[in-house]
Amino acid sequence: MPNHKVLLLHGPNLNLLGDRETGIYGKDTTEHINNEIHAAAEEMGIDCEIRQSNHEGTLIDLLHGARGQFEGVVINAGALTHYSIALRDAIAAIRMPTIEVHMSNVHAREEFRHKSVIAPVCAGSIIGFGKYSYILALQGLKELL
Amino acid sequence: MPNHKVLLLHGPNLNLLGDRETGIYGKDTTEHINNEIHAAAEEMGIDCEIRQSNHEGTLIDLLHGARGQFEGVVINAGALTHYSIALRDAIAAIRMPTIEVHMSNVHAREEFRHKSVIAPVCAGSIIGFGKYSYILALQGLKELL
Amino acid sequence: MPNHKVLLLHGPNLNLLGDRETGIYGKDTTEHINNEIHAAAEEMGIDCEIRQSNHEGTLIDLLHGARGQFEGVVINAGALTHYSIALRDAIAAIRMPTIEVHMSNVHAREEFRHKSVIAPVCAGSIIGFGKYSYILALQGLKELL
Amino acid sequence: MPNHKVLLLHGPNLNLLGDRETGIYGKDTTEHINNEIHAAAEEMGIDCEIRQSNHEGTLIDLLHGARGQFEGVVINAGALTHYSIALRDAIAAIRMPTIEVHMSNVHAREEFRHKSVIAPVCAGSIIGFGKYSYILALQGLKELL
Amino acid sequence: MPNHKVLLLHGPNLNLLGDRETGIYGKDTTEHINNEIHAAAEEMGIDCEIRQSNHEGTLIDLLHGARGQFEGVVINAGALTHYSIALRDAIAAIRMPTIEVHMSNVHAREEFRHKSVIAPVCAGSIIGFGKYSYILALQGLKELL
Amino acid sequence: MPNHKVLLLHGPNLNLLGDRETGIYGKDTTEHINNEIHAAAEEMGIDCEIRQSNHEGTLIDLLHGARGQFEGVVINAGALTHYSIALRDAIAAIRMPTIEVHMSNVHAREEFRHKSVIAPVCAGSIIGFGKYSYILALQGLKELL
Amino acid sequence: MPNHKVLLLHGPNLNLLGDRETGIYGKDTTEHINNEIHAAAEEMGIDCEIRQSNHEGTLIDLLHGARGQFEGVVINAGALTHYSIALRDAIAAIRMPTIEVHMSNVHAREEFRHKSVIAPVCAGSIIGFGKYSYILALQGLKELL
Amino acid sequence: MPNHKVLLLHGPNLNLLGDRETGIYGKDTTEHINNEIHAAAEEMGIDCEIRQSNHEGTLIDLLHGARGQFEGVVINAGALTHYSIALRDAIAAIRMPTIEVHMSNVHAREEFRHKSVIAPVCAGSIIGFGKYSYILALQGLKELL
Amino acid sequence: MPNHKVLLLHGPNLNLLGDRETGIYGKDTTEHINNEIHAAAEEMGIDCEIRQSNHEGTLIDLLHGARGQFEGVVINAGALTHYSIALRDAIAAIRMPTIEVHMSNVHAREEFRHKSVIAPVCAGSIIGFGKYSYILALQGLKELL
Amino acid sequence: MPNHKVLLLHGPNLNLLGDRETGIYGKDTTEHINNEIHAAAEEMGIDCEIRQSNHEGTLIDLLHGARGQFEGVVINAGALTHYSIALRDAIAAIRMPTIEVHMSNVHAREEFRHKSVIAPVCAGSIIGFGKYSYILALQGLKELL
Amino acid sequence: MPNHKVLLLHGPNLNLLGDRETGIYGKDTTEHINNEIHAAAEEMGIDCEIRQSNHEGTLIDLLHGARGQFEGVVINAGALTHYSIALRDAIAAIRMPTIEVHMSNVHAREEFRHKSVIAPVCAGSIIGFGKYSYILALQGLKELL
Amino acid sequence: MPNHKVLLLHGPNLNLLGDRETGIYGKDTTEHINNEIHAAAEEMGIDCEIRQSNHEGTLIDLLHGARGQFEGVVINAGALTHYSIALRDAIAAIRMPTIEVHMSNVHAREEFRHKSVIAPVCAGSIIGFGKYSYILALQGLKELL
Repeated sequence: MPNHKVLLLHGPNLNLLGDRETGIYGKDTTEHINNEIHAAAEEMGIDCEIRQSNHEGTLIDLLHGARGQFEGVVINAGALTHYSIALRDAIAAIRMPTIEVHMSNVHAREEFRHKSVIAPVCAGSIIGFGKYSYILALQGLKELL
Repeated sequence: MPNHKVLLLHGPNLNLLGDRETGIYGKDTTEHINNEIHAAAEEMGIDCEIRQSNHEGTLIDLLHGARGQFEGVVINAGALTHYSIALRDAIAAIRMPTIEVHMSNVHAREEFRHKSVIAPVCAGSIIGFGKYSYILALQGLKELL
Repeated sequence: MPNHKVLLLHGPNLNLLGDRETGIYGKDTTEHINNEIHAAAEEMGIDCEIRQSNHEGTLIDLLHGARGQFEGVVINAGALTHYSIALRDAIAAIRMPTIEVHMSNVHAREEFRHKSVIAPVCAGSIIGFGKYSYILALQGLKELL
Repeated sequence: MPNHKVLLLHGPNLNLLGDRETGIYGKDTTEHINNEIHAAAEEMGIDCEIRQSNHEGTLIDLLHGARGQFEGVVINAGALTHYSIALRDAIAAIRMPTIEVHMSNVHAREEFRHKSVIAPVCAGSIIGFGKYSYILALQGLKELL
Repeated sequence: MPNHKVLLLHGPNLNLLGDRETGIYGKDTTEHINNEIHAAAEEMGIDCEIRQSNHEGTLIDLLHGARGQFEGVVINAGALTHYSIALRDAIAAIRMPTIEVHMSNVHAREEFRHKSVIAPVCAGSIIGFGKYSYILALQGLKELL
Repeated sequence: MPNHKVLLLHGPNLNLLGDRETGIYGKDTTEHINNEIHAAAEEMGIDCEIRQSNHEGTLIDLLHGARGQFEGVVINAGALTHYSIALRDAIAAIRMPTIEVHMSNVHAREEFRHKSVIAPVCAGSIIGFGKYSYILALQGLKELL
Repeated sequence: MPNHKVLLLHGPNLNLLGDRETGIYGKDTTEHINNEIHAAAEEMGIDCEIRQSNHEGTLIDLLHGARGQFEGVVINAGALTHYSIALRDAIAAIRMPTIEVHMSNVHAREEFRHKSVIAPVCAGSIIGFGKYSYILALQGLKELL
Repeated sequence: MPNHKVLLLHGPNLNLLGDRETGIYGKDTTEHINNEIHAAAEEMGIDCEIRQSNHEGTLIDLLHGARGQFEGVVINAGALTHYSIALRDAIAAIRMPTIEVHMSNVHAREEFRHKSVIAPVCAGSIIGFGKYSYILALQGLKELL
Repeated sequence: MPNHKVLLLHGPNLNLLGDRETGIYGKDTTEHINNEIHAAAEEMGIDCEIRQSNHEGTLIDLLHGARGQFEGVVINAGALTHYSIALRDAIAAIRMPTIEVHMSNVHAREEFRHKSVIAPVCAGSIIGFGKYSYILALQGLKELL
Repeated sequence: MPNHKVLLLHGPNLNLLGDRETGIYGKDTTEHINNEIHAAAEEMGIDCEIRQSNHEGTLIDLLHGARGQFEGVVINAGALTHYSIALRDAIAAIRMPTIEVHMSNVHAREEFRHKSVIAPVCAGSIIGFGKYSYILALQGLKELL
Repeated sequence: MPNHKVLLLHGPNLNLLGDRETGIYGKDTTEHINNEIHAAAEEMGIDCEIRQSNHEGTLIDLLHGARGQFEGVVINAGALTHYSIALRDAIAAIRMPTIEVHMSNVHAREEFRHKSVIAPVCAGSIIGFGKYSYILALQGLKELL
Repeated sequence: MPNHKVLLLHGPNLNLLGDRETGIYGKDTTEHINNEIHAAAEEMGIDCEIRQSNHEGTLIDLLHGARGQFEGVVINAGALTHYSIALRDAIAAIRMPTIEVHMSNVHAREEFRHKSVIAPVCAGSIIGFGKYSYILALQGLKELL
């Protein structure tokens, strides 16, 4: 059975992991976490392409480009989670199972982080397991595929 | 009398027309719709340049660049309609008659699509006529010029 | 091909056009605008009957009476736009394509004029083109018929 | 290494799985799902005790009783998720990593299901993977322990 | 034709009728009212089992148990009407016509009593007829069966 | 014992029953339903006069005229239910037991239909039993007289 | 100096004065109050025409008809005060000093009576002096003319 | 018949009349207006003591001191109108008919000026007649005494 | 003079005192606190029965049972304070002076803890004195009896 | 052991006790209550200085002056409770245990009296015991010192 | 060139600087800060009179007195910033450039400190620079004069 | 002492200064203002790099790149101020003192411009001094470094 192909997107500021607010996000760098994700994905039989952008438009372009190239999407949209209806529309438009991920428990942080405008068009959400959130998301996505 | 020059902007996800949620947006592709717009514009004596972008910043750049090049703007800002105050400010800044367009009846969809932050700085709005919304907008804009 | 038959309704206070707040609505009288609408409708192959009333109930009666007599409706409901759920139900009840019209850009006026309770049951909306809004509405309606 | 001991709680109405709103929750019965959870837990080296109650007070009693008996909790609080501050206080009081689970994507359902009063005191949330949500929750909990 | 079998539930504090706030609920005791309901039900050809509980969980258990035993439910959920989403889910889950009853006119009392979280999943509501509300509810339910 | 005299009012758009949104209101015409109401009323010893109007003012006039002519009122105010404070004041002013009726379960429809401005001044409400709502209302009203 | 000509309008339910809620409005009938107003007006040198209607549309028609016939308007819009934007637009449209009157202190009654949608387009308001409110309004209007 | 004794209070910033925002308040100074009030009061048989303070506490002290010294109060509380619950309680405490006055139409100004926390405990309100508001208030108060 | 008989109720999670969030609630166990309350009560001439439950329904049952057995109630309803309208109704129903108690200053904690649905039907509230809150409540209750 | 020194502040309108709204506050005058407080304080070994002011600024000055002179504060801030953030800041600034007192049950009165802006910075609150609230506050304060 | 004359006002509780919440406001006393302000002002060619009051009314009096005596105002209104509309009106009334100052970043503190009712009538705001905020304000004010 | 290195960012539409809404922003072009800023910075001993972008993502990239290159940031985020939580997170992530700047007094403009989502993570704000706002910000930033 060939591997599943999955696109994993990091949104704004997630390039700074290991550097930014380590009390919240832990001390592993983005690169280090990506390596762990790749390793775990491989073990699950998933080809996982990882991309990061601080640009809403670029994330939308990447989602559009995923059609025909990938079977599912894992996305940590960062702060865009809370207001980017354009991102929501892109997820809805590509008709591909998409899993929303957050490393920190957004519900234990500021009020404005409690609302996700993309959640209603995602298949599921994984919140609060640090870097392991990504790996649970891949497992969940694999189950849905 | 020389032709009026009009810039027509498609916002995020409108490159996927004919593919995305066809129950809402119809089965014509963006390219097909653009051709129909061009044909109708020509008949009205309008030179209509059509651009699409998924990037808020690019749309703002295009609006800025329209000064001195075009006499009016037709814009379907997609989901940015509902939160991009930066787009609103760009429309206000260029002091050029601008028509807001939506293909679907946004008022019959989710609550968050009922509010347009750009409407107050547009000259008028055309909502709910499918691809024909663009053509009505060009006619309305011509009347205002 | 016989003409389309369309009912065009003016709501409360629209009998005072040309007299009332001319800064907002222009200087053409209601009679003058109706003549222009009739002329434009004729050119489009539309038989357009125009009625005005300041009474919510009369507008509802006229909508009910439109069944079997007309193929579509154009309505500028005036201030009733913002609270008459009864009018909304009448539009929904007659199952006939209905276009909402406003001469001024209601979104650039008081907050309470930004909400339309009839928009969700109309096919489309034309806002902000002065008297030309009616003519665009007839064109849009013709396209839908 | 001895097995981890985990308490898994089903809240109100979750005894009716396979029977209730199968369009939302699937056709597997609660008993069937519990068996799958037990099997998966065993494979992960987790001793998982599963309890269900329609009584807020009983769920609180079970949480209190978990102290000293279990290392972590997985809870699908059902509708209590949205208003039971008493349940929230119980979770906070027992100072044990607790994972919130929902089988359906609550964010794609009624507005009142978007708010979780227990989320801020849980370590993480797993939403939308059907019965597999429980298994992901056990994995995530194991990672945290 | 055999009798219809109906479960009638009194929620919290309704065991105190005739004693509690008689200005609002009248002077008949719960027992007295139950007797009148039984008499009226019998006349309508309805076997009516009446249960009261101050426990949300017990009411849910009773609703679950009604499946296969009864054809319909009449429920005065008391104060739970206003916040028990768990009760709402139980009513929705059992897929049985359910009538919401209130003896007093809740809309003429405190603001928080104006909202019913169970109304949207009930077939109908009877409000404000004192003890006679129950009898109207049985009649209405019989009509629906 | 002479018959009770009751005024039954249908509000806006209720003249279209059997024609309008039959999925919600059923297929019986207003005339047909009125006949059934008359038959049932007669059986209960009630002289029931039925009137319909799409005009708020006419309904108020009819309520005023009911003083001295009728002993009670049954009213389905249609969409006016949700905003006509003038109707509310008329009901309060005539000091006559008034029953609010809705054929459909308004609480299972749009949010704006959940609020009734007339409920606080009515004696009771009957909601969701289709045409049978009117007959239950007459029974309830008779009980109150 | 010829008399000032003033139109005084009573809105919905104000035909029932002396009969309706006398605890709030006093025991004088509408006719009696009108006589007192006429007497006081005459003394002030005001020709005061008094009209009452329960129909929003009729009140609007009367306001429109006031142009050229009267110099100012005194209006007790009754419950329409709180929602009739159409009435507000009529007052604004006729560009004539208009005084809003309430007999009772609306601010000491239900919350929904605290908001007046016509106040912003009236010249002034007189609230809470019973029937004497009308006479103060005439005096105030005379001062403004 | 001895004269009525009335206390007239000007609140914060009303010492600057004739100087402050003359577009809103007119060009007469506070002193000039006070003289006109005294003259009009005398004519009505009212002994009117006028006091002004920018201090909430001083206004409360003056209201307390009015007990036994005056029969009624006229108060323009200025901006305190919108938030001083202490002033409200003072007016309620002294049990003396009190008339609220505003020179400008506060409802045609900023949203926060639409709410009066003192209105519910005043007998009546006079709004929008410039300096003449005070004189109407004295007349209205006299009528109530 | 015989002792006063008082029922003292601890709500959900208050069985964990001394164990749960000791930073907020202190280090004394529930048992220890109960002993201190008993000692203090005895000194005041009060027979104080103390009960704890995590079940809303049980607390309601206990309140109902208090009628005829006790003269007053002291209740720390824990988290139920903020949403249990059923508890509120029970307190109102038994017509017995009831004192609301909180050990911590709920107003210095999360926003949702600032609202008490039972406060309006209690005679008084004692908030923020740790275990001593109970003793002040007994003193206050004694004063009221 | 020397006496504790406590400052007790009465806010606006509390000088009128025994005179103002005796249905709510009882018939004892402020002087009488102060005497009872002094007597009770003495018995508890507390030197209690009592001050009253209708001026927010004076209360703030008194709080500032309490530093170094007193060990704690008891304050009934009257209506300032609901909006005086300056008073709140003064209480926070002096870092001295402060007890909030209300004689009446503010939660059973108008909605705007349910919110206290000073509660979050006070140590505790005593509400609803009439004049005895002050004495309970002194006891509670003594316990905290 | 003669010096500019500027009035600098400290509002409630700002007399306690160096003593109150030093974590927020720093350890310099009000007197020390005033000396630094005077020194900096002198260097800028500004005669700066500094006043502090805990009384809203006194601050208003000082603002009124500034007319003709000063060219501009710098004000740190403390907690009055958030609710004193009377202060706002005073600033608007004196028609003199006024700069709003806060030492701490109010937007990083409680929600209620995010709103300033005086900001709309000030020329500018300086927030978050500790005592240096005053000096920046003087520089900014000088630039505007 | 070497110069401080500061990054100054202009957000969307700020490239149009001198051209856009000159009534609000003045007539100086962006280039002209940048030159004045550079001159003033040099005088203060600050190396100030100035960048402008209409792209949220580009501004985030620039903020990220500032780490290690600059000691502080001055940012006029334009319309992004009001909704870009991603920008907020970038400012928080780079842990560098950042000053928020606005040329116009945003609090005197539309309601939606009163809220800044970046203010809570900035060190301070300078609002309303036109182009001089930037220079005050540099001074304030220098003071903080």
